[in-house]
Amino acid sequence: MPSTPLPDLYRAYIDGLNRQAWDELHRHVAPDVERNGDKLGFAGYRAMLVKDFQDIPDLWFTIALLACTPPLVSARLAFDCSPKAKFLGLAVDGRKISFTENVFYEYRAGKIARVWSVVDKPAIEAQLAQMTAP
Amino acid sequence: MPSTPLPDLYRAYIDGLNRQAWDELHRHVAPDVERNGDKLGFAGYRAMLVKDFQDIPDLWFTIALLACTPPLVSARLAFDCSPKAKFLGLAVDGRKISFTENVFYEYRAGKIARVWSVVDKPAIEAQLAQMTAP
Repeated sequence: MPSTPLPDLYRAYIDGLNRQAWDELHRHVAPDVERNGDKLGFAGYRAMLVKDFQDIPDLWFTIALLACTPPLVSARLAFDCSPKAKFLGLAVDGRKISFTENVFYEYRAGKIARVWSVVDKPAIEAQLAQMTAP
Repeated sequence: MPSTPLPDLYRAYIDGLNRQAWDELHRHVAPDVERNGDKLGFAGYRAMLVKDFQDIPDLWFTIALLACTPPLVSARLAFDCSPKAKFLGLAVDGRKISFTENVFYEYRAGKIARVWSVVDKPAIEAQLAQMTAP
């Protein structure tokens, strides 16, 4: 598995997320995965993703940009989706928003071991300010 | 110049920013540079950076993570600094904050032509909420 190029592993991970193939997630995520310094572990990471899809029924991950220098993969992810209620503390309440996330992943033995994510919250704030209330 | 590896070009760009070597900036930034979809051009990009250092006198760019797949460079930048007044609309008022920026650069002929930056504003909001007023 470590011989598969990391961008290919990463695209397979994102494809699995979009299919909500939770039984495949262990192939892509390490047991002791950390995200933004939080030691979530696999169960916590899986629970976070499952909740994301519950809160955002039309969630879909699109890879807009990708750079790789092993063991790092960096992606710019693009989203067009409708969070049902609050998202990042903002009252989106079902309105359609577009935003991006720039995120680094550190792979270890073919699995994601550490994640450093930044979501463009100001872009969402600016969109909501220009919309009428839901 | 295009034969120099992009990570080396990028590190030289960041080194120049930290020295505030504005007369060298044209070596690193294209005349028609765009940032987050804004067609700033070189003059606008330079003015943005100069203003950043005016607003944040102790500004210093540290490359925490770097990934490269030409023509893309992606970096996670780490900052420990003290914006004099407002920063991203937040009243920092001279207090020391730590935050990160995940940012992609597209190079063209050895110069930065497009930039997609996301700054971790929620991290700053969380720090300010835990501080006493200045």
